Amino acid sequence: MRIELINTGTEIILGYKPNTHLEFLANQLFFLDGKIALQQTVGDGDELKEVIKTSFYRSTVTIVTGGLGPTSDDLTREAAAAALNLPLVFYPEVSKKVKSQYEAQGIQAPEWAVQKQSFFPENSLILENPYGTACGAIIEKEGHYLILLPGPPRELEPMWKKSVIPWWKTHFHSEKTNRLVCRIIGVPESVIQEKIESKLKLAGIEEIGYCESPGEVSLRLLFKDPAATEKIAQLLIEAFGDDLYTLEDQTLEEVVIKNAAAKNLKVATAESCTGGLISNRLTDVPGSSAVFTHGWVTYSNEAKISQLKVNSHLFSSVGAVSREVAEAMALGALEASGADLSLAVTGIAGPQGGTPEKPVGLVWLAIGRKGKPIRSYERFFPSDRLTFKRLVSQFGIDLLRRSILDKNLPKC
Amino acid sequence: MRIELINTGTEIILGYKPNTHLEFLANQLFFLDGKIALQQTVGDGDELKEVIKTSFYRSTVTIVTGGLGPTSDDLTREAAAAALNLPLVFYPEVSKKVKSQYEAQGIQAPEWAVQKQSFFPENSLILENPYGTACGAIIEKEGHYLILLPGPPRELEPMWKKSVIPWWKTHFHSEKTNRLVCRIIGVPESVIQEKIESKLKLAGIEEIGYCESPGEVSLRLLFKDPAATEKIAQLLIEAFGDDLYTLEDQTLEEVVIKNAAAKNLKVATAESCTGGLISNRLTDVPGSSAVFTHGWVTYSNEAKISQLKVNSHLFSSVGAVSREVAEAMALGALEASGADLSLAVTGIAGPQGGTPEKPVGLVWLAIGRKGKPIRSYERFFPSDRLTFKRLVSQFGIDLLRRSILDKNLPKC
Repeated sequence: MRIELINTGTEIILGYKPNTHLEFLANQLFFLDGKIALQQTVGDGDELKEVIKTSFYRSTVTIVTGGLGPTSDDLTREAAAAALNLPLVFYPEVSKKVKSQYEAQGIQAPEWAVQKQSFFPENSLILENPYGTACGAIIEKEGHYLILLPGPPRELEPMWKKSVIPWWKTHFHSEKTNRLVCRIIGVPESVIQEKIESKLKLAGIEEIGYCESPGEVSLRLLFKDPAATEKIAQLLIEAFGDDLYTLEDQTLEEVVIKNAAAKNLKVATAESCTGGLISNRLTDVPGSSAVFTHGWVTYSNEAKISQLKVNSHLFSSVGAVSREVAEAMALGALEASGADLSLAVTGIAGPQGGTPEKPVGLVWLAIGRKGKPIRSYERFFPSDRLTFKRLVSQFGIDLLRRSILDKNLPKC
Repeated sequence: MRIELINTGTEIILGYKPNTHLEFLANQLFFLDGKIALQQTVGDGDELKEVIKTSFYRSTVTIVTGGLGPTSDDLTREAAAAALNLPLVFYPEVSKKVKSQYEAQGIQAPEWAVQKQSFFPENSLILENPYGTACGAIIEKEGHYLILLPGPPRELEPMWKKSVIPWWKTHFHSEKTNRLVCRIIGVPESVIQEKIESKLKLAGIEEIGYCESPGEVSLRLLFKDPAATEKIAQLLIEAFGDDLYTLEDQTLEEVVIKNAAAKNLKVATAESCTGGLISNRLTDVPGSSAVFTHGWVTYSNEAKISQLKVNSHLFSSVGAVSREVAEAMALGALEASGADLSLAVTGIAGPQGGTPEKPVGLVWLAIGRKGKPIRSYERFFPSDRLTFKRLVSQFGIDLLRRSILDKNLPKC
């Protein structure tokens, strides 16, 4: 079954906005056992009709995003009708919905805008849009399907989940509907693949997707037999142990917040080189206020001394990027916050500030836990400033996870 | 002049990685007065040759990204040669470069990998890759050009800037080579367009690009006459005043750090609902340690009381999200840090925690400056948690900018 994706919109083809539709839809289709064979981005203009026509007749499903709004450059409905040689028809129920959407936004509905958005190719199955005025549609002709979706992700994504997925499941059968998403930290993709791929295939996994991002790899698995879930989970746990941090598609910071909340543990952070990225990631999680209470971004030595009671002599003796300062920061944060755990980081993000002894990319991390000795780690992540910050935050948040879950911490 | 872009790679078409090439190249081409007419993403497989062939003969320039590595799914060189009906030829100088790149990475060069990456279509102009083993190439045939670039952005982007741009400028002439990138904060795109587009066109601007992101709009302008720069800048300043924060393509946080550093001003932050995002953005700027010294992420009331000396009675009388608490946080940060400026934010990021009186999206910000009264602002940004954090950080960092530059602050 061939699937093609067409993204339309001047803002995408001119590079004003990133095209997030391919990533979103490819990931969604993975779980429907579908793959996009070809994706195209065209402007709002002349090429759209030709591109739709070509894709439609050589594919089972063609998905078109964008161009469903009310303005003059919104041409997807017209292009689709022309490409499929179908008349554009007025849909009274769409007209009502468009009007009520404008009203919900507190706007007096302009008649021309309502009018324009109420026409769709004949025999369209209309898809409602609770987050905007542009309805979507599914059109079938000669065994081919065209799915029209609005361009803004905050409209497209709910429409896909609410309307397209149920439709898809009744129209296209897949046996491989059982899924599992796990994430592994600190192990390169190639090592993961070598270690597990053949075992997973033997266990009945039919599709494996890998996705590497700084400091972690996501594995997405698709399989037929729901009874295999337990066995697959066991294989993954055996292969990756504590480096496997979720079997349920969670982020690292979600795992930390959820588990700390369940154990009623409070967390504090003391950041230098990450500049607040760690606390920012933790507080991206809804409900994090039950766990995260205090964060310090002690970027200057003075701040480390006055806020975290780091001994000022350390800066001249061992320097700000050192085991001693990291440990003193973790201890200071633990004591000043009264939290159960603290995480401290101090390093050289660059591009300036490196020396032969302490180059850009060097970092010391320390993790403190009430009643236990502080543990500290030296790591080296030579890269650009933002990637360095990300990798340090990843290693640090993972230290929190291991400590919260009473896992073995890495060797110091 | 027609330009097409072809992105190849399983990781993109399967949605494992976002496709950032279109955004990058479209923005780069804007300044060369070029526009991409059609972009396509194909897997690494069979379709590539056909897609290249079709694009090549109907376009002046076809850019292909990805598929230049050593593995079996890297098929761009072969597909390009077949599409253009050219033989693949061994390039000894490429072979040397590939070997030395492997050596630079501390890897014993595998002979098959060196071999594979040393073949290119006949008459290729080879593009060096200082960041990886895969060279790029430019191939001309019958007045059409094919540009082959490696897939990883950290290899593609330097190659584009170092090798392709100079080549492009000698091959394609554009009169509209003068450019200006400005950014405007807090004004909707449609208002900006209405206010300035006709004036800019009268002043000789030939291309205007708009790019909206949370809380700001970027304007990219292309024009013929270099002498017009001054006049255009003047028009923009007249139209947008202090809301225009850069005429030099800087980010908001860069403007803050650069100007504070020039005036030797120190900045401290006291964040609640943004959870460290503000300090994280400020410390994304290289050299920020000269400006940013102290940050607090006082997520709990206890942290606000103990770290910033907020009066504990305020939480029961007016609540954590209030003018009084925001101002006390700003004052506490100013005093505890000794900095020249402080920024404080306290709000309700949601999705939980809202009340009819204080709904999700409500935020109080306060800005303190040594020797001046603290000023505070109530704002309402109803949106999802992450967008809320972003919008609050944007408004807050802009308060810092205005204060540092002695601009008028918004009305309280």
